Amino acid sequence: MTFAATVLTLYPEMFPGPLGVSLAGKALAEGKWSCTPVHIREFATDKHRTVDDTPAGGGSGMVLKADVLAAAIDHARLLSPDAPVIAMTPRGAPITQARVRELALGPGVTVLCGRFEGFDERIFAGRQVEEISVGDIILSGGEPAALMVLDACIRLLPGVMGAPSSGAEESFEDGLLEYPHYTRPVEWEGRTIPQVLRSGDHAKIAAWRKQQAEIDTRSRRPDLWERHTGVRVQSASGAQRTDEGPGK
Amino acid sequence: MTFAATVLTLYPEMFPGPLGVSLAGKALAEGKWSCTPVHIREFATDKHRTVDDTPAGGGSGMVLKADVLAAAIDHARLLSPDAPVIAMTPRGAPITQARVRELALGPGVTVLCGRFEGFDERIFAGRQVEEISVGDIILSGGEPAALMVLDACIRLLPGVMGAPSSGAEESFEDGLLEYPHYTRPVEWEGRTIPQVLRSGDHAKIAAWRKQQAEIDTRSRRPDLWERHTGVRVQSASGAQRTDEGPGK
Repeated sequence: MTFAATVLTLYPEMFPGPLGVSLAGKALAEGKWSCTPVHIREFATDKHRTVDDTPAGGGSGMVLKADVLAAAIDHARLLSPDAPVIAMTPRGAPITQARVRELALGPGVTVLCGRFEGFDERIFAGRQVEEISVGDIILSGGEPAALMVLDACIRLLPGVMGAPSSGAEESFEDGLLEYPHYTRPVEWEGRTIPQVLRSGDHAKIAAWRKQQAEIDTRSRRPDLWERHTGVRVQSASGAQRTDEGPGK
Repeated sequence: MTFAATVLTLYPEMFPGPLGVSLAGKALAEGKWSCTPVHIREFATDKHRTVDDTPAGGGSGMVLKADVLAAAIDHARLLSPDAPVIAMTPRGAPITQARVRELALGPGVTVLCGRFEGFDERIFAGRQVEEISVGDIILSGGEPAALMVLDACIRLLPGVMGAPSSGAEESFEDGLLEYPHYTRPVEWEGRTIPQVLRSGDHAKIAAWRKQQAEIDTRSRRPDLWERHTGVRVQSASGAQRTDEGPGK
């Protein structure tokens, strides 16, 4: 089965872009997924092919018109009737690995990319569009976010990743950050690989990795730790950590 | 001044990619930023040009070698001595708009993109690399995340955005989600633009937008609301919301 990625955008030339090379590019060439960029401007109805208009109530920037977006979404639903429609917007729900896994199991996804100030709010209820956010930063448009979400989906498609077991042990799959990795040389610039990893004792190694994942999650991501354990991290660095800029 | 983006990657052909068109592409052509992809493999020292090795302690996947990464980073620091070096990794600190603004004010940024299982942990302390995450999902590599962070920086560079005021009113700039937008037609499929936005009363409009931003932040992103107000959202949907997949 081919995972159908349809992207509604004002910059169709951005797709597949980086997803046309490497792992995703190979999978695309093998037909494991398809990439159909759809130009939103084709669904404008006036002779100037207008896709946006000034914000009601005033303010800077332009807003993508609900009627034009609806026509583009309706077209995408003809192409890929059962694919959920998601919009990349900083007002959306933060993307999760659980949602990515759900999407990857389905027939595909239609991704709506905004530009300018964003979308006319009515489109979300009017066309059952799921609002999704990727990180609390502002982009020039939804396209880089769409590439990221598609990449996360594609690597989970059957036969795409080299080692099938690679998926299960990674960050977030069990609600924790992944443990740290090391590889040869054993000593590099005076820094050595932790002794336990060189012990050959598989039970000890597994216990150490679990402990490291817990320690790092608790200190780096108190939000994840709280969700994982139900216990709130009380340290002062907790709630405000992500406001401080660099984490270390 | 040119903002120097240096990207250390195994897929240099992915850059500038989508950043070569639209707003970012125009700014690139105008010399407002530069894009220098550097192939990590060029810094391998053996005849097979090896960049990765098996994880110490066992497990699936491959880990990028600290010695090779260090040589690539040292090269980037020669190219762009004052640019901070960030690594895209799910173990990192979640990127914030505040950090993006800091980066955009600086001389540039060197972005280290991983593939396979990730980086040898020793590289971060060994070369003062800041670990940054963009959303709690797993990508096939750091490249789509790098494109996203660079896009967020580039739009803030002087002269890149059309309307200079566009930056200030957006999501996260004041710690809240942005208010919803509407534009013509006034009625679309039975859905009308809220009356207040058509009132012409600028004070009322500003008050309504502030209230909407607060309501939406509280209901959609209790984590942001808590950070903004210091008050914890008690609703059951709060802490676990991002585990539920789609937000609506």
